[in-house]
Amino acid sequence: MNTQTQPEAIIEADPEIPVVRIFREFDAPPELVYRAHVDPELVKQWMGPRSIDMDIEKWDLRTGGEYRYTALRDGEEIAHFYGSVHRVWENEKIIQTFGFDEMPEAVSLDTLVLQDLGNGRTRLEITSVVESMEAQAGMMASGMEVGINEGYAALDALLAGMDA
Amino acid sequence: MNTQTQPEAIIEADPEIPVVRIFREFDAPPELVYRAHVDPELVKQWMGPRSIDMDIEKWDLRTGGEYRYTALRDGEEIAHFYGSVHRVWENEKIIQTFGFDEMPEAVSLDTLVLQDLGNGRTRLEITSVVESMEAQAGMMASGMEVGINEGYAALDALLAGMDA
Repeated sequence: MNTQTQPEAIIEADPEIPVVRIFREFDAPPELVYRAHVDPELVKQWMGPRSIDMDIEKWDLRTGGEYRYTALRDGEEIAHFYGSVHRVWENEKIIQTFGFDEMPEAVSLDTLVLQDLGNGRTRLEITSVVESMEAQAGMMASGMEVGINEGYAALDALLAGMDA
Repeated sequence: MNTQTQPEAIIEADPEIPVVRIFREFDAPPELVYRAHVDPELVKQWMGPRSIDMDIEKWDLRTGGEYRYTALRDGEEIAHFYGSVHRVWENEKIIQTFGFDEMPEAVSLDTLVLQDLGNGRTRLEITSVVESMEAQAGMMASGMEVGINEGYAALDALLAGMDA
């Protein structure tokens, strides 16, 4: 079974404007990838680094909704993430904000797009907009690639076991 | 009574990154300017161009909240605006998204900051971030200055009649 033709996500900082783009392909149709993003029972099974547990307090991924979760390492709270949901297009697109209590001034506007590649495959693209090139540099230096790649590897495994 | 030392808002497009900044001073303390932004009964008295009525469907300006309103001209619906609220600092700062149904791909991340200038005056700054220079150009060409300036003139008058 071919579940990883693209094991590492591509993470690109735009050189001109404060935008970061993330690309990844999944061996599952958009409906499954979408469900794995909006159902909190599924989200907590894959999101973030392997060493971190996610305690989801709120996960209301509808237009006008909000989410909030705590990252725990060995039972200790290490960060509190949250955001509001601008708009949702079922199975296709989610626009939301992202921030964390530990650095409340830092915020990004994130657009997730799921493109149907056919043959049961999906291309995921996240466009993350921040308000300055300094904030973009901080984001690229945050170590987020660990959580992204370990999270998406867990998502590969989860998707392989889901029914369409 | 001096209610307008700065009758026109300053609206600046950043030449380097897709950010628009709006500045305006008000002859009222931050608490009143804030209240006029979060109380829907007050908001509908000042927001937008003079020729437009605002029918506010939802106005929940709390962290994780949302808002939605319809703009009407002579009783006819001309636009449907909405957004989600990322985070609120009472009397100081609001971070939220902004969009409208008529162009659902267009979204901005708006940070409103109220600075206490002393002597009962407030400086308002809005930083609006979009995802491309093209989107920034579209925003600057939208005619938004009419709604901003006519709205803020109505806000001047409203604030002059409010009790601290």
